[in-house]
Amino acid sequence: MAHAATAPRRYVILTDGHLLDRRAKTAHGVIQYGRDEIAAVIDPQFAGRDVADALPRLGRSAPIVASVREALAFRPTSLLVGVANQGGFIPAPFRPHILDAIDARLEIVSGLHELLNDDAQFVERAKRSGSRLWDVRVPPDGIPLFSGAAYRVPQVVALAVGSDCAVGKKSVMIELERAARAAGDHAEFVATGQTGVLIAGKGIVVDRVISDFITGAAEQLVLAVAPDADFALVEGQGSIYHPAYAPVTLGLLFGCAPDMLVLCVDASREAIEEYGVPLPALPEMICAHEALLAPVKPARVVAIAVNTWGLEDERARAVLAGAQQQTGLPADDVVRHGGATIWRALRNAARSTAKRQANAAAR
Amino acid sequence: MAHAATAPRRYVILTDGHLLDRRAKTAHGVIQYGRDEIAAVIDPQFAGRDVADALPRLGRSAPIVASVREALAFRPTSLLVGVANQGGFIPAPFRPHILDAIDARLEIVSGLHELLNDDAQFVERAKRSGSRLWDVRVPPDGIPLFSGAAYRVPQVVALAVGSDCAVGKKSVMIELERAARAAGDHAEFVATGQTGVLIAGKGIVVDRVISDFITGAAEQLVLAVAPDADFALVEGQGSIYHPAYAPVTLGLLFGCAPDMLVLCVDASREAIEEYGVPLPALPEMICAHEALLAPVKPARVVAIAVNTWGLEDERARAVLAGAQQQTGLPADDVVRHGGATIWRALRNAARSTAKRQANAAAR
Repeated sequence: MAHAATAPRRYVILTDGHLLDRRAKTAHGVIQYGRDEIAAVIDPQFAGRDVADALPRLGRSAPIVASVREALAFRPTSLLVGVANQGGFIPAPFRPHILDAIDARLEIVSGLHELLNDDAQFVERAKRSGSRLWDVRVPPDGIPLFSGAAYRVPQVVALAVGSDCAVGKKSVMIELERAARAAGDHAEFVATGQTGVLIAGKGIVVDRVISDFITGAAEQLVLAVAPDADFALVEGQGSIYHPAYAPVTLGLLFGCAPDMLVLCVDASREAIEEYGVPLPALPEMICAHEALLAPVKPARVVAIAVNTWGLEDERARAVLAGAQQQTGLPADDVVRHGGATIWRALRNAARSTAKRQANAAAR
Repeated sequence: MAHAATAPRRYVILTDGHLLDRRAKTAHGVIQYGRDEIAAVIDPQFAGRDVADALPRLGRSAPIVASVREALAFRPTSLLVGVANQGGFIPAPFRPHILDAIDARLEIVSGLHELLNDDAQFVERAKRSGSRLWDVRVPPDGIPLFSGAAYRVPQVVALAVGSDCAVGKKSVMIELERAARAAGDHAEFVATGQTGVLIAGKGIVVDRVISDFITGAAEQLVLAVAPDADFALVEGQGSIYHPAYAPVTLGLLFGCAPDMLVLCVDASREAIEEYGVPLPALPEMICAHEALLAPVKPARVVAIAVNTWGLEDERARAVLAGAQQQTGLPADDVVRHGGATIWRALRNAARSTAKRQANAAAR
């Protein structure tokens, strides 16, 4: 299945004119958080410079070149289409680069709606060169129904849940993975959305899976975690309060069989605005998630991840203190302050789970 | 979209040798509950007899014939593949009948896994004759995301929820539709599963819809209810306690925006057996469903439909009395006793909803 571990990629990332703008957020995400190596970036406007110089906040160095031909000197394995535009189509100026990369037998990776595998020219040329076309949005074939095997994985499974879409669930789990590494622990980020899959280099975009199989897809994801990892940190999707996407959220809640939850909220939002659904207070949100899981496989919320983006430092601290006081749980903004505090909360909570005790006893 | 109302069908139902056995349950369901007319049944073994004589419990009369050619005398519009076998493949002996029906320009309707539209011979012959191939399991193209329009449909929307799969949610809503008709009311059964869709002649098999769009599919279904109906009676799927299928259940709970719920349980089950999930007591089940809907669009459980299949009459009465006492709500077995009692409960509950008052005021 497509989510199985593969050899690490060495990406050449195609941004062609958009390196600095928001449209290149796919490229930015993979440069900042990606597990794979970055061989080079293709953007003629910046050719000769380095990513560390053009985009210092992303914290990674890679040469910027003008063409696939130049990028080949840096031994890439794959070309990543690094932009996400409105409509999700493949920008026309990208086509010659993609064709060059196919002819050079690079794997082509895209998270766009318009699929590489629906493009007759790409498919035909890839067939000729033997290059693989990976449309990240498309779930693998043959996802089985949920079997219950997820209840028996050795890892402690932590799932991000949230008050709404786009509150930072993905970033929280990635920052926790980093904090775990910094603490000498082995936790694996498990991707469930397209940007997450590009960052991790594997995963399933679960909202594209047929409804009957979404719990099965989530289960396959936790079954595929590295056997030597102690923790699976599963990227959440949507919210149980979201009128349109709650079924996807529940698919992860039941399918990945979490041992604990991290509740992610955005300090600036009080409602799911498109639908006018007011959000409950934090303690109510905690109860609702725990109540939903209780009959099937109980799990507790063990920490609150608050997105305080845009707030002054002092105001952010007050918001975090308030969340902590309201819930009696550790609360932090892991993007602002790093994931150490919340990572400690997860580790402490894991000590008291039966699973972690069994793991420790087995060593 | 495929779920839009169409002219009533006149079915010839193909059971070819299986009329009396369990494999013909699709045929039995459509004969007993279907809205469409039954022109004839094809089963050479019983040719010359009538369905009312061969299967009196289904309560419908139709001639049994030996071939499509003979069935044509009864002016059918459509041929229904009337069996559901393990594996869901099209039985080889059915193929010549299906081809005859295609050549006779009948619509072919099948709820099997093996799709008519994946069969090159059927597709080619249907193209030639102009006959339509309807694979009931396949959702229509172009299902939109959930928009919130379901909150504003004029009908009172009642949704069946249940403790588990296969507790009788479909039969409950069909019996309630009958009880409504008997009481001079206009309620419309809304099908969400394959047998339901065959019975209603329209609907969407929601568990086959891509997860992101399941709430949108549920919404489209309530938007498509006849404008002059006062009630939409939506067939439920799965259970919020089912580890594999709960996301489908939640898709209906949020997507069809019910004004009230009918809780369906099976008197003989205390757990979701495949997964060892013990079922909560009735009052807890009621609370859990109401709590899940409260933040988005509140709705109450207004009646308990208990499946007492296999119990002695006296024991069944005791079970129903117990359910009523435990919950303070009307409880009945609508298959055993008819839907009148629960239908009255729905009508009474509707009087106190804002929607029904608005409808009444508008007249």
